[in-house]
This record gives sequence, structure tokens and C-alpha cells, in this order.
Amino acid sequence: MSLTDRLTDRDAMLHALAAADAAALAGDVPVGAVMVGPAGELVVGRNLREAEQDPTAHAELVALREAAKLNGHWRMSGWTCVVTLEPCPMCAGALVNARVDRLVYGCRDPKAGAVHTLFTIATDTRLNHRLEVVEGVEAEACAQRLKDFFAARRREGKK
Amino acid sequence: MSLTDRLTDRDAMLHALAAADAAALAGDVPVGAVMVGPAGELVVGRNLREAEQDPTAHAELVALREAAKLNGHWRMSGWTCVVTLEPCPMCAGALVNARVDRLVYGCRDPKAGAVHTLFTIATDTRLNHRLEVVEGVEAEACAQRLKDFFAARRREGKK
Repeated sequence: MSLTDRLTDRDAMLHALAAADAAALAGDVPVGAVMVGPAGELVVGRNLREAEQDPTAHAELVALREAAKLNGHWRMSGWTCVVTLEPCPMCAGALVNARVDRLVYGCRDPKAGAVHTLFTIATDTRLNHRLEVVEGVEAEACAQRLKDFFAARRREGKK
Repeated sequence: MSLTDRLTDRDAMLHALAAADAAALAGDVPVGAVMVGPAGELVVGRNLREAEQDPTAHAELVALREAAKLNGHWRMSGWTCVVTLEPCPMCAGALVNARVDRLVYGCRDPKAGAVHTLFTIATDTRLNHRLEVVEGVEAEACAQRLKDFFAARRREGKK
């Protein structure tokens, strides 16, 4: 990967972090994602589970569905998903289904991570598509958002 | 499981099969799903991937998102998902995320099945929720829809 590509991933992650902050302000677990298209398109999504009471509205799915509208086709060849937290089975499976080229994520998810931690759905050779995966971009900043959010919730007496 | 419950699962599957037929007529792979609620709600969804060019619009996700609107909360306790084909990783993960109680499906999916075939996402004790799973309800009818659809596509020269 070239230096330019790495900078681009980090730039995209800063947008994903901004989206995570917006999620936290709205009372949702702070996870943000951006879909980066082959012509430089940048589609931002954030976790909207509580805001929309939609169990499927994780940041990746929100960004992916919006990006598919822009793309005009469900097949997202040439696109990269950049997300602050390791995708869960639902989101990793959606990225495979959509034939997304690359996945860049910040920190691992010990409870539901489905790319490296509990499953390896994005790179499983039995499925009909695999993604190039880069992890650890702005990992500390991504993890810190989650720590701060859950610490504040505990202080407020919510589980 | 009582005889009444079994009949209810089969009844729901007949609705899912009708939705699968509607998908095929619209040019989508024939998979249908219904979400059955604790008060007898029945929310139908069908595969809309081609129709809406949405890579996440598998039958289960379409039905789940609609059912969540009716439910008024992302947590779908008390609900059952009835679907003609074994869910893929995305859909199995979504059912776990939504805390759906039960999953009933027709036939297995050798290419992407994530409940029994390639993964066991719906019953994995490492995740924070598990579903009761019933397979094989109207399995032959569910599989025949898919066979007929792909045979017709091959005759038409589509892959």
C-alpha cells in the first residue's frame, strides 16, 4: 500500500470518528463509518440504532445503503468501507454481500468482532467474495470514544 | 413444541413462500421472510436486492426493519423470523443483534448458510444473544423455488 493510500485511509477514519462523536451526542454507541468510492465519493454513516429504533442501523449498514444509492447498483466494486470498530457478523456479512473491495477499521471488538476476533467473515474463502482488510487505523482514538461513552453511561446508572 | 406452534410455523412459511414467488416475478432470487410478533403480528418481506439495488435488502432484513417500525423498538423480544432459506452471515447477525427469539427456516444454503452450514451465528455462545432454531419447514417447496429460478436463468443465458 502506498503512502498516499495510507493517508487516505486515515483521512477517511477522521470522518468516521466525527460520525462516531455525532452518534454519542444522540445517545447511540459511538461508531462511525464512511464508504469511499472509486471516484473519491465519501458517504458518511453513524450508528442510528437508538435514534431510529432500527436493529440493523449500525454505522456500516447506514453508510453502505446510502452509498449503494449513489452507486446505483448493489455491487460495490471499487469501494472501501472505513469504520471505527471491527464489524459484527451482520456488518461483515453485508460488506461481503455487497462485494466491497476493502475494509479499514480502527479497534477490535472483543464481544462481536467478526473480521478477526470471533469470526473471519470478511476473508473466509468459502464465501463468494473476500475483502482486503486493514486494521488499527486511529485505533486508540476509536477505542477511547467507546470507553468514554460506556464510562459515562455507568456514571448515569444505565447498563 | 405443541402441534399448534408447528402449524403456526408452517402457516407463516406459506406466507414466506408467497413472498419468495413475488421476488422471482420481479427478477430477484426467490427468498421470502415473515416476522411473527408476540401479538400475532405478521410482517412480510422479500428479497429486494435487484429491485432496489440495495445490497442489504435480503428478505430477512426487509421484514426485520419493517417489523421494528411496528414494534417501536429495535429489541425484538417475543418475535420469530420465518424464512424460506437459511440466513447468510448478514441476516443471521441481524437477527442476533435484534434479539429475535426464534428462527424458522426452510432449506439450507450450501453457499452462504450461517446458521448450520458454514457458521452457527444464531446459536454461538460467544455472542450476546442466541435464537431457538427450527429448520426444514416446507424445505422442499423452498428449495424448489430456487432450483426453478436458477434453471430459468440458465436457459435465458444469464449466470
